[in-house]
Amino acid sequence: MKSALKKADLIKDYIINTRRELHRHPEPAFKENWTHDFIKKQLKNLGCKPKTLNKTGLTADIGKGKNRIALRADMDALPIPEENSLAYKSENKGFMHACGHDTHMAMLLGAAKLFTDTKNPPPVRLIFQPSEEKTPGGAKGMIEEGALKGISEIYAIHINPEAEVGTLTLKSGVMLATADEMEITIIGKGGHAAEPHKTIDPIYASALFINQTQSLVSRKAAPKSPFVISICTINGGTAFNITPDKVKMKGTVRTIDKELWQKAPQWIENILKGLNLSLGIDYELAYERGYPIMKNDPKKTENLIKIAESIFKNIELMESPIMGGEDFAYYLQEIPGTFVFMGGANKKKGIHSKLHSANFNIDENALPLGTALLYSLATK
Amino acid sequence: MKSALKKADLIKDYIINTRRELHRHPEPAFKENWTHDFIKKQLKNLGCKPKTLNKTGLTADIGKGKNRIALRADMDALPIPEENSLAYKSENKGFMHACGHDTHMAMLLGAAKLFTDTKNPPPVRLIFQPSEEKTPGGAKGMIEEGALKGISEIYAIHINPEAEVGTLTLKSGVMLATADEMEITIIGKGGHAAEPHKTIDPIYASALFINQTQSLVSRKAAPKSPFVISICTINGGTAFNITPDKVKMKGTVRTIDKELWQKAPQWIENILKGLNLSLGIDYELAYERGYPIMKNDPKKTENLIKIAESIFKNIELMESPIMGGEDFAYYLQEIPGTFVFMGGANKKKGIHSKLHSANFNIDENALPLGTALLYSLATK
Amino acid sequence: MKSALKKADLIKDYIINTRRELHRHPEPAFKENWTHDFIKKQLKNLGCKPKTLNKTGLTADIGKGKNRIALRADMDALPIPEENSLAYKSENKGFMHACGHDTHMAMLLGAAKLFTDTKNPPPVRLIFQPSEEKTPGGAKGMIEEGALKGISEIYAIHINPEAEVGTLTLKSGVMLATADEMEITIIGKGGHAAEPHKTIDPIYASALFINQTQSLVSRKAAPKSPFVISICTINGGTAFNITPDKVKMKGTVRTIDKELWQKAPQWIENILKGLNLSLGIDYELAYERGYPIMKNDPKKTENLIKIAESIFKNIELMESPIMGGEDFAYYLQEIPGTFVFMGGANKKKGIHSKLHSANFNIDENALPLGTALLYSLATK
Amino acid sequence: MKSALKKADLIKDYIINTRRELHRHPEPAFKENWTHDFIKKQLKNLGCKPKTLNKTGLTADIGKGKNRIALRADMDALPIPEENSLAYKSENKGFMHACGHDTHMAMLLGAAKLFTDTKNPPPVRLIFQPSEEKTPGGAKGMIEEGALKGISEIYAIHINPEAEVGTLTLKSGVMLATADEMEITIIGKGGHAAEPHKTIDPIYASALFINQTQSLVSRKAAPKSPFVISICTINGGTAFNITPDKVKMKGTVRTIDKELWQKAPQWIENILKGLNLSLGIDYELAYERGYPIMKNDPKKTENLIKIAESIFKNIELMESPIMGGEDFAYYLQEIPGTFVFMGGANKKKGIHSKLHSANFNIDENALPLGTALLYSLATK
Repeated sequence: MKSALKKADLIKDYIINTRRELHRHPEPAFKENWTHDFIKKQLKNLGCKPKTLNKTGLTADIGKGKNRIALRADMDALPIPEENSLAYKSENKGFMHACGHDTHMAMLLGAAKLFTDTKNPPPVRLIFQPSEEKTPGGAKGMIEEGALKGISEIYAIHINPEAEVGTLTLKSGVMLATADEMEITIIGKGGHAAEPHKTIDPIYASALFINQTQSLVSRKAAPKSPFVISICTINGGTAFNITPDKVKMKGTVRTIDKELWQKAPQWIENILKGLNLSLGIDYELAYERGYPIMKNDPKKTENLIKIAESIFKNIELMESPIMGGEDFAYYLQEIPGTFVFMGGANKKKGIHSKLHSANFNIDENALPLGTALLYSLATK
Repeated sequence: MKSALKKADLIKDYIINTRRELHRHPEPAFKENWTHDFIKKQLKNLGCKPKTLNKTGLTADIGKGKNRIALRADMDALPIPEENSLAYKSENKGFMHACGHDTHMAMLLGAAKLFTDTKNPPPVRLIFQPSEEKTPGGAKGMIEEGALKGISEIYAIHINPEAEVGTLTLKSGVMLATADEMEITIIGKGGHAAEPHKTIDPIYASALFINQTQSLVSRKAAPKSPFVISICTINGGTAFNITPDKVKMKGTVRTIDKELWQKAPQWIENILKGLNLSLGIDYELAYERGYPIMKNDPKKTENLIKIAESIFKNIELMESPIMGGEDFAYYLQEIPGTFVFMGGANKKKGIHSKLHSANFNIDENALPLGTALLYSLATK
Repeated sequence: MKSALKKADLIKDYIINTRRELHRHPEPAFKENWTHDFIKKQLKNLGCKPKTLNKTGLTADIGKGKNRIALRADMDALPIPEENSLAYKSENKGFMHACGHDTHMAMLLGAAKLFTDTKNPPPVRLIFQPSEEKTPGGAKGMIEEGALKGISEIYAIHINPEAEVGTLTLKSGVMLATADEMEITIIGKGGHAAEPHKTIDPIYASALFINQTQSLVSRKAAPKSPFVISICTINGGTAFNITPDKVKMKGTVRTIDKELWQKAPQWIENILKGLNLSLGIDYELAYERGYPIMKNDPKKTENLIKIAESIFKNIELMESPIMGGEDFAYYLQEIPGTFVFMGGANKKKGIHSKLHSANFNIDENALPLGTALLYSLATK
Repeated sequence: MKSALKKADLIKDYIINTRRELHRHPEPAFKENWTHDFIKKQLKNLGCKPKTLNKTGLTADIGKGKNRIALRADMDALPIPEENSLAYKSENKGFMHACGHDTHMAMLLGAAKLFTDTKNPPPVRLIFQPSEEKTPGGAKGMIEEGALKGISEIYAIHINPEAEVGTLTLKSGVMLATADEMEITIIGKGGHAAEPHKTIDPIYASALFINQTQSLVSRKAAPKSPFVISICTINGGTAFNITPDKVKMKGTVRTIDKELWQKAPQWIENILKGLNLSLGIDYELAYERGYPIMKNDPKKTENLIKIAESIFKNIELMESPIMGGEDFAYYLQEIPGTFVFMGGANKKKGIHSKLHSANFNIDENALPLGTALLYSLATK
């Protein structure tokens, strides 16, 4: 009997071509229409009966029997203009699969191909989920529409463009943080730049706000408690000589400490309230709670490690959780399972980049390993 | 003989209708194409022979004789979406005559009508100048293309939506400041918001930059020396969870103190250099010298005051210069003349706003006063 | 008849020796005990009958007749450790006549000597006033205790160690600003430096406070309105690893704009209130209104200039007021008079320093000029 | 045979009286002269032969045999004025045993009494060490002068005024962080507060420095890596109206991450270099490496837990290291051992305070437990 890895290697071309096709067509959260149709067609070609869920998501059941396990891939891309010069570069200007969801879908379609090539495939459910990047996340809707019905365990792989091909990285227990999202509007009073005393300058107020958020991390959190507050967008003003009325900012709060998580919105609002008093600005704060803390099930993790040993050269256990959030956490709140990072870098070939960067890139030789892992999880 | 004011009042409808037509069609600096064509047609209708200068500007000579005087109106609008609900609201979305250049053009066209209605009009040159709002300013190009050739003195009116109709405000000597323009790009290193230690956060760096510019005013300038540094636009980032690579800002520096004016760019760059050292950011600083200090000629100012006394109820002499820059300063570097502010507010009617605001509005009854002043300057 | 300057030159040694004796014995506000006794003795030696007023102050009347004029010298020194290596260096460690009040007293004693050497001296009152450096100022108490009773005009000289000997600098009308004094205590919650989350860090809060005060100048004041906020002392903490409970700061607010003067305390308190909200600190703000705006009487100033022309080579009229406050303003609120700056630098000799600096120094050849001016004001 | 706890209870009065005597006489680092003499006398009274080491430290060997174990107490007090109103309140104004070293010494003297009351005491070395609070720490000198010669293991107890009596808190492996000490002098240019443009304001520069250090924690450290930078003292200026030449600050840097520890001084200096460029200040940075990371030996810790179970009701294992440094780390770099925290609070009695606070206080009933533990460690 051929090993899972050998089987996956035989369909390497299919996986890579599928990934490239998806890479060309990045679509943002809940607008994965082309992607949805492409996957639907692929699944039908493989003899599956895909169901559309949660706007642009899909599920497809393969095989029969008890203890059906779910394998999940996320579908959405990011609003980042691609800077790579690849033959299969993004054709949707301003968007890019810079978080590798194209690879997740391709690996899962590869596994689908292996299952459907088998006479008696194990009971699996493929979950293609929209909107992982944007709260409240697509996982919630998938679950609400029944994606986990009849499922006893669930797995997902995330590509890591910083780790070498052949590396699998994971952690038992808490592995990923909460990820809240906030939008802040500072409302001042616009006017001519030459008359600052007749304006309330929202750009200066924003500077004080951004500056003061640093101290929530440096002074309010216990040193041992991971805590991140990042302001990631800022926009205001139209001309060099007109003080604007407003500045808008977006950002995120991350932690694995429940108390910090509870207090953060109030602390942030208190900074804004303070600036209201001292500068006279008004503000709007839209604070949206993000994905829950993600906990891998210890037993499923242990089992996955055993399976993975024949596929990956290097299995790394993480010492501490990382601050990225994932809506896969919603699935793991319902049923046991495990989420893993899989290396996609190849430093010898000069392939080495970061998630969410405009030159995100991976060595596609990594993809059969992921397909093999997904396949093995269901067959063993 | 009818007074200038009476004559102007008789063509009030023409002036107001012209102003409204112009108000409907705001166009940004050097894109005043519709405006150019409209004025050209108006001037032709009045029997003038307009010449196109400096892309979208125009001049037209009326009358014969020595000592030709020039009357100037500026033409460009601002990138501000109009918030007024007027019948003649801006039809060019995102742009607005929020600095009142529409009124300047209408008053000058009114004066043109009065001149051309006269048998032996005095020797005047009408100057319709593009791009007053955007450095390097349209005045420079107008002068280079001969707009002042053969001219011995020059005048211009600026509407003031904060002062009551019937008010004229001016100052002999230095009346307006320099107005430099700058564009700053802070270049950090983008990445995932959850991993601040792998990024160089340009948004935080911008906050420190904006904050520190305050101290150039509070600590570097002599208390008696007017000095303004305003950052008026800031833009960076695409998503709530991606630290961007760059932030762009635009702003202005104003002063009537030559030493501060000379040192300001270096002081600003020193802040950026400091942040390069402490935060590791890179930067680009495009610092463009703005309009020169604007000095009204004392004699011409005195003379204008005498003429204005029969038109305006209230002539106010400014105690100190104001911080707004005007490219009219270029004309006054070449030949003597005077620049004045004319009231356009009517508080009883609730008309009272600010220059460069999205609800800029004036009482149009002010316009004949301006036309009368321009007409009188040439005829007396 | 000898000129006043010649007369003063003849007693140069007396003036200089007196100044050196006073320089050796600097004493802070209202603690000018040695100084008081020294002056009392000098005045008695000259045949005067000094009266002690306002704790450590003195007055002495010389001559008879109407229209008695007052000449005032201030007495207090500053808490600055002298860094000069002079034979007559401060012997009162930690204190120094760094504002030149020693020279003021010496020049006035010189004038007293000239008056008492005269047969029929003019009607003069010598006023030696304590505590000019510290609000509420010694002038107030002097006036309350009758120092201006029967006086019709008043004059004072202030040494200027930056201007050359032979220079007199003055201004008709508003010459000096208000000078408010404030003391701010930021009250946090101390604790171990390793547990910032259990403390409320008053040092960080002070940093935000100091930083934000810059923007009162840069954003709240009209660019044309001189406005200074300086925090000049800051003290908090005892050990490198203990976050303290409190930080204390002292500072000053200066302006010649009444509206800014009125609003400043509230603006400062608003920053503190804002930090109370955002950081949880408490605060105490002791805001003491300083000396009033000082206005020289135009006629007396004109007259003084005429008199001074035969004594000083270079009489400079100031273009704009300066931001230093003087409690001499209290006298000028009661009766007309003039306050002048007199040069004490000699750049060729390398004597050139700043007021309130630890190496304040002057060319003592300047002193007879001051004595001559004081003498002439009373005799002409 | 009596239990260790019973034995300790019998000498409770001795321990408490000793502690009170020490509490009355707090002395700062390396000035523990009274303390040294008091301990020396006590040890002599117990029949020991104390040796003076490292200026004010002492050792004393009791018992004979191999595997001599060391028990260490630290001796120095803090520059904190005591705010308690106790009969045995600090008599050395401005100083206080606010870190509980008085209790450490008293517990160790109690153990000494128990050992010397025994016929054949085990081989122990008592180490009374000066200067734990002040880097480079007294431990280093003690070791250099032979305090660990012939010793195979070492233990120390630290009182914890926040945990209840009966609680013992400890951790195997890394338990305490590095604690670096820094002194920063910002050198500007002083002058009169009314002329900010003639000064370089070191107080404003300090504010920017303190502010920017926050971002080293929030932006430079990985969220999972504990990192503390606290500025704990700041001093500058003499008068409300004189901008000073200098501001001095002291602070500490703490981490258990070696890379952060290595980079911190450069990051801090980079902020100062940046301010040098942007503000023109100079600076001095004295950065002193603090105590090493403190690691408890796993075996010795396991053994101590077993012994402690009969003495303490509540043994708590810490989840993560804490940020306080201890020079006990130097001993543990040489030989195995364990360092523990022992509860001293009694909330029912209202006794509950913080280390390094001016109202540090404990329930003295805790002390016999510590003595019993020290005694047991040597006898078992």
